[in-house]
Amino acid sequence: MKMDNLYLALIHHPVVNRKEMTVGSALTTIDIHDIARACRTFDVRAFYIVTPFEDQANLAHQVMDHWIKGVGGELNPSRKQALERVRVAQDLDTVCQEIEEERNQPVVRVATSAKGGENTVSAAGFKETLKNNASHVLVFGTAWGLAQEVLETCDMMLDPILGPGSYNHLSVRSAASIYLDRITNG
Amino acid sequence: MKMDNLYLALIHHPVVNRKEMTVGSALTTIDIHDIARACRTFDVRAFYIVTPFEDQANLAHQVMDHWIKGVGGELNPSRKQALERVRVAQDLDTVCQEIEEERNQPVVRVATSAKGGENTVSAAGFKETLKNNASHVLVFGTAWGLAQEVLETCDMMLDPILGPGSYNHLSVRSAASIYLDRITNG
Repeated sequence: MKMDNLYLALIHHPVVNRKEMTVGSALTTIDIHDIARACRTFDVRAFYIVTPFEDQANLAHQVMDHWIKGVGGELNPSRKQALERVRVAQDLDTVCQEIEEERNQPVVRVATSAKGGENTVSAAGFKETLKNNASHVLVFGTAWGLAQEVLETCDMMLDPILGPGSYNHLSVRSAASIYLDRITNG
Repeated sequence: MKMDNLYLALIHHPVVNRKEMTVGSALTTIDIHDIARACRTFDVRAFYIVTPFEDQANLAHQVMDHWIKGVGGELNPSRKQALERVRVAQDLDTVCQEIEEERNQPVVRVATSAKGGENTVSAAGFKETLKNNASHVLVFGTAWGLAQEVLETCDMMLDPILGPGSYNHLSVRSAASIYLDRITNG
């Protein structure tokens, strides 16, 4: 299935820390690489790095430039192909505005959370929803997850990824990869 | 399903570079964290960092000590729980000897490869195999993948993880996470 209507956003603010306080997180450059590679593999249309901090946005652009325009892409063309789908935006509203302009349709915001929530949807169910051609953005939080004020703007939430026990502290890189695999191949 | 008989090994030598030459790779410390967290989530019995290089083995132990015995584990107990399942070994034979001593059974070596191979097995099929209680070690390569000499010692290979297109350059962190989710929840 070609997921021409699926986008992914990685939020760096507002997210929560381990004490459930709202904070902003610094960029982790490996997030850009790993999630961009997963997005390219599973054909997600674009991967947004979302940060309101100008220095962090600049850092994201430096990494992208190295791999897209610089020597990185010459040495490793597959990395270039992945990073070409990365975009930077200051907040989720801006992400959705851009997507609306690109596809001329409202955007459905799909939250992810290790903590779960009410009426969460399976990846298989979401895969069916995606077939209706509306634009969807999968929203991931850095740090200890999305702040409540972001969750409240979302239209739906996917089931949390669980193992056989109670431990659920996957990296956001692992979680994004697993969700995309489930949506594509599950 | 509790995977008491499943282990994971991340090989740093012998692996191949992009020109298919056999090389050794340096440790990427985020591999330890991400794959340990995925192993803990999906209840893999132990995660072996495999490197013949003494300085790289020392680095792995330093990271583990920080999170298991040092201040890291006090600040972030869930990280400690994950890293407690990490072990270091010099080669895959040593890994298998240790597992044999631990479970008193021969070990089935299960290769993974983005390139695929003949007679590969689906994660669902492998999940059934795991129910027979024999010890199994899932083997992952760093750099551009496992060297032929490692693949030849393996008893079986899992299907490669594919998206809708031809691009298959997931990070080893993403690939390990996806395989463990497929084996557990697929």
